[in-house]
Amino acid sequence: MKDSKLSAAEVIAGWNAPDQVAAAQAHLLSPFESMEKLGQTPDRPLLTRGEGVWLYDEAGRQLLDGPAGMWCTQVGYARPEIAEAIAAQAMTISYSSPWYFLNGPSAALAARIAAVTPGDLNHVFFTTGGSSAVDSALRFMQFYNNVLGRAGKKTILARIDGYHGSSHLTAAVSGRAGNRPNFDLEMETISFLSAPNMFTRPEGMDEAAFCDHLIAELEERIETLGADSIGCFIAEPVLASGGILVPPQGYHQRTLEICRRHDILYISDEVVTGFGRLGHWFASEEVYGITPDIITFAKGVTSGYVPLGGFAISDAVLARIAGEKSKQSFYSNGYTYSGQPVACAAGLASMDIIEGDGLLEHVRDIAPYFQAQLATLADLPLVGDVRGAGLLGCVEIVADRAKGVSTDLDAKLTLRIDRLCYDKGLIVRPIRSMCVMSPALVITREQIDLMVRILRESITEVGIAARAEGLLP
Amino acid sequence: MKDSKLSAAEVIAGWNAPDQVAAAQAHLLSPFESMEKLGQTPDRPLLTRGEGVWLYDEAGRQLLDGPAGMWCTQVGYARPEIAEAIAAQAMTISYSSPWYFLNGPSAALAARIAAVTPGDLNHVFFTTGGSSAVDSALRFMQFYNNVLGRAGKKTILARIDGYHGSSHLTAAVSGRAGNRPNFDLEMETISFLSAPNMFTRPEGMDEAAFCDHLIAELEERIETLGADSIGCFIAEPVLASGGILVPPQGYHQRTLEICRRHDILYISDEVVTGFGRLGHWFASEEVYGITPDIITFAKGVTSGYVPLGGFAISDAVLARIAGEKSKQSFYSNGYTYSGQPVACAAGLASMDIIEGDGLLEHVRDIAPYFQAQLATLADLPLVGDVRGAGLLGCVEIVADRAKGVSTDLDAKLTLRIDRLCYDKGLIVRPIRSMCVMSPALVITREQIDLMVRILRESITEVGIAARAEGLLP
Repeated sequence: MKDSKLSAAEVIAGWNAPDQVAAAQAHLLSPFESMEKLGQTPDRPLLTRGEGVWLYDEAGRQLLDGPAGMWCTQVGYARPEIAEAIAAQAMTISYSSPWYFLNGPSAALAARIAAVTPGDLNHVFFTTGGSSAVDSALRFMQFYNNVLGRAGKKTILARIDGYHGSSHLTAAVSGRAGNRPNFDLEMETISFLSAPNMFTRPEGMDEAAFCDHLIAELEERIETLGADSIGCFIAEPVLASGGILVPPQGYHQRTLEICRRHDILYISDEVVTGFGRLGHWFASEEVYGITPDIITFAKGVTSGYVPLGGFAISDAVLARIAGEKSKQSFYSNGYTYSGQPVACAAGLASMDIIEGDGLLEHVRDIAPYFQAQLATLADLPLVGDVRGAGLLGCVEIVADRAKGVSTDLDAKLTLRIDRLCYDKGLIVRPIRSMCVMSPALVITREQIDLMVRILRESITEVGIAARAEGLLP
Repeated sequence: MKDSKLSAAEVIAGWNAPDQVAAAQAHLLSPFESMEKLGQTPDRPLLTRGEGVWLYDEAGRQLLDGPAGMWCTQVGYARPEIAEAIAAQAMTISYSSPWYFLNGPSAALAARIAAVTPGDLNHVFFTTGGSSAVDSALRFMQFYNNVLGRAGKKTILARIDGYHGSSHLTAAVSGRAGNRPNFDLEMETISFLSAPNMFTRPEGMDEAAFCDHLIAELEERIETLGADSIGCFIAEPVLASGGILVPPQGYHQRTLEICRRHDILYISDEVVTGFGRLGHWFASEEVYGITPDIITFAKGVTSGYVPLGGFAISDAVLARIAGEKSKQSFYSNGYTYSGQPVACAAGLASMDIIEGDGLLEHVRDIAPYFQAQLATLADLPLVGDVRGAGLLGCVEIVADRAKGVSTDLDAKLTLRIDRLCYDKGLIVRPIRSMCVMSPALVITREQIDLMVRILRESITEVGIAARAEGLLP
């Protein structure tokens, strides 16, 4: 296979799918690739076209994209406004070094984002995606405390079931159990708190008591470690790939208040919740009533058309170190592609569409319907829980609550549900035993109906088959 | 400034430059931003247009782009083939999740890259840039040894003056002194070797003896730490931002041979040297005669038009863990934007241009002229050294060799040279006391002449002024 010569034009024009699949099998190492099945590209169909909320696979099957790519295609596929913006920008200035120069799109996008962040989060640092955004925010915390002469104040408080990325450090602060055994991630300076998981909270504890319980844990942890040793708390407003976990009422404000009291930076990781997912540009303030010190973003900022991420940071935080003059007072972190002009042009075009099409209003309008329709699935015997916020929803498959949640059997059945949904025209992104739905913001009521109908049919049919097999009582 | 509303169309069409600068000053946090001068965007001119090797700033000044962005704009600015490819791909399928699907551009680009890597480096993993490429390669090493049941074999051998990225781990393996004090980067599992710096090698040591010296250090280090504790050696074939350091003859082969003997993975970081910079797709084999286990790449893969990076890995390495079946045998590392189709389409289009325009042959043809012309600057009193390989060149400014190299005075004078070159129409990317030139691969002899003429004039004039001021004898 050393003779492969595939031009861009051929592939984009639809060079035949079987050859593309063969090329992938021979040459592509994919995320989460199994060494057991290396080269077999198991279960990864080739996608050939997208339009709006729809994807099309190599067999020509039309699929409603439940997870919106990976919670990122906010405005939907094939928007000419974005294609035209990136092509025009590529012809104007395709690259400029952020170390030495400014370019229009990054300046304009920084201003545009600053205009929609809460409070005084008025400065924006750009990266290439969510992992580099979070990595840069955490490194800012180290930098900040070094400049302030507090070298010992660096411990990161994170949460079980949180997900913050796939670079060494961002993976280390991710509390999801799934990928931890495969790498070396233990770090002394990271301390994990419990997941604010309402579904698995201690029995008999109501929402208010559970919140008190979580808050007490945070306060005890700070007491134990010492506030002088803790640099930041990092939290997704809604834990996304950890299972669409919406913390109990009051949790956000109380954790923020405790962090402020102890001079601990509060990093709100809005890679998933930002750019309209919950009906607002950001969820921190408008949904959960908090103004964090730093907000990280990625995914939806370009609707997935071009890699881009970053963080917004508060003027108050910057003011504490502004004016410092030393070798240590350069924020010497950054990427070749920080503020890359084509990526930022995609971001501007995507924000234009979100505004022009009134997509935030649309999400606020349609989200209650989306949640209500998903909730109708709770009557199915296999459904253990339905939860969500905005256009984020999770249907958790539980074969037998008495045996616990997310068992191997649950995961097995969820995979079957996923396969059946695919055959019926719906992409589910199964996260173990969870069917997570986070469609493009442009989704309609009719498309939500289709999504829920396919889920209902598939869950029902898998349940019937599993009982016939004796897997279920 | 919460009322900013700048559309993509306005900015791309050239919404006025002063407003863009004001937006950047108010809202952009740039890489290496000085806290002392925060909000003043000191010395970062706004670039408004690029074409071929030329950039244009807000004042309309035409500038020859010496560093090719950040060693990345291989085919030059404003190539319609790339603009058209990314727009077409954005309209076909703008995003697909690499966790669950394949797409044509990533499959084709993986095959295309595998076809030009040395030896059996036939699988490609995609990321968003150089940092995530190196981070993923290093995490692969951890993963690999965990699967092989060698949990203790994880130490990374790296080199002083190496640069491998700006995420937590990649920054930690970067031996450049400049940004280390600002963050927390000390890790027990990283061990630094000397830079293979011919210019600052011990006095009286010839090239062969210096190579022996470096090889002895590597062997001693392995002896001291124990081969069983060392997972990989990571090395740029030519240390780039560390100062265009070309190791002594034989160094590459001997370090590789030692790594093979001790079952230590050899990671060749070709983020800068890949995609034609040295006249070949990759420098490892065709220039330096080695077939590493892993090659990381980024920058030139898309000529900087869209963020993309990745690594290629050998079949032999993968074969050692292929077929393993356990929870640990999933390479559970990856990014939302791994194999992003628009980015991969840019990569295919850029490779098409490099092939179609015969740019590798062009670089092999013109590089000797480039190096020879730069070498003519060695007669200037301020020039301490001129060195390079391919289209990578470095003119090192040394005010007084007796006082050492890269002194504060050297850096001060280099900054003045940089400013003067800018006024005369040449972008220099000063790395402390080094004027590094790494132009787009399309550069012509006439453009090289202009580059060297401006450098000569500027270095000469700065020297005259410095002597008049009494800064130089």
